[in-house]
Amino acid sequence: MRTTSFLPLLAAVLMAVPARAQAQGNGSSRPPAASRDSNSDEAAIHRWVDRWAKAFRAHDLDGIMALYAPEVVAYDVVPPLQFSGREAYRKDYSEFLAQYDGPIDLEIRELRILVDGNLAYAAGLERIGGVLKDGQRSDVWVRFTSIFRRRGGRWLDIHDHVSVPADFGTGKAVLDLKP
Amino acid sequence: MRTTSFLPLLAAVLMAVPARAQAQGNGSSRPPAASRDSNSDEAAIHRWVDRWAKAFRAHDLDGIMALYAPEVVAYDVVPPLQFSGREAYRKDYSEFLAQYDGPIDLEIRELRILVDGNLAYAAGLERIGGVLKDGQRSDVWVRFTSIFRRRGGRWLDIHDHVSVPADFGTGKAVLDLKP
Repeated sequence: MRTTSFLPLLAAVLMAVPARAQAQGNGSSRPPAASRDSNSDEAAIHRWVDRWAKAFRAHDLDGIMALYAPEVVAYDVVPPLQFSGREAYRKDYSEFLAQYDGPIDLEIRELRILVDGNLAYAAGLERIGGVLKDGQRSDVWVRFTSIFRRRGGRWLDIHDHVSVPADFGTGKAVLDLKP
Repeated sequence: MRTTSFLPLLAAVLMAVPARAQAQGNGSSRPPAASRDSNSDEAAIHRWVDRWAKAFRAHDLDGIMALYAPEVVAYDVVPPLQFSGREAYRKDYSEFLAQYDGPIDLEIRELRILVDGNLAYAAGLERIGGVLKDGQRSDVWVRFTSIFRRRGGRWLDIHDHVSVPADFGTGKAVLDLKP
């Protein structure tokens, strides 16, 4: 699960370009990609994030799942340890979305994106907010890491990791942290 | 945090080669790397995991931290939301290791590794066991995702994500799951 808002997204685009340039410049066993590629590859992952965010806010389950590879493995914020395959992850998403009454409020911070060849990752902090079915307001900051692969020119998410920290002293999930 | 044991590691090496071949074969904007590269790149990440595991089991903090990039960002199993930079993460590692009396017992399952160019990721399920300073035995399965970048021919970890799932109904971290 991941999202964005426009201002941090813009900042991340600006930050991602030098990171990409650095990745290209050191120790590569291949010739550096043209600079055109750096910008367009990062931009493609940002478009993925935008599409995901739009679908997630709108409870559009088909729109979300179209962004994942069939073999996706997800370590989600809720049990079990992992969801293997798009169908299992779809069920997890469906149950998550069903908790909310109306659109979901999303905010992302400290988004980092890096691409090389046909492999990419994005990571950041994400606030998921909204009104639950029982009328209570919920807001929780999670950490997300996503891995993407490009096939036939199209980027799909092959691995998600979403979590909150745990307090081993009390055994509690730590749900009230803010960046 | 991540580790391995020899038998799953071997299985993962065997599994990783077709995955890599598939990544190379679809939608690349660059020529495919020689097959020599596929094997040696995956093997380099496995060696990273081996070195990390050896250092972690032995409480060798310098050995662990030598495997990380200075700018590493970590979403660890414990608060806060993130650790930014190698020094902050070193302190986190130091406090984690100090909980254990004697060597740490590690087991990894379902390790997945993928490399393209100078970017790689590894993810899997990991059991961290040992005797705590209070004499209690602890065993917990966590999920980990790590991102690596190659610079000057050397792979360093630039992003870690380690977690257990959370039960939002009870507010508890779920520490007793098994794969």
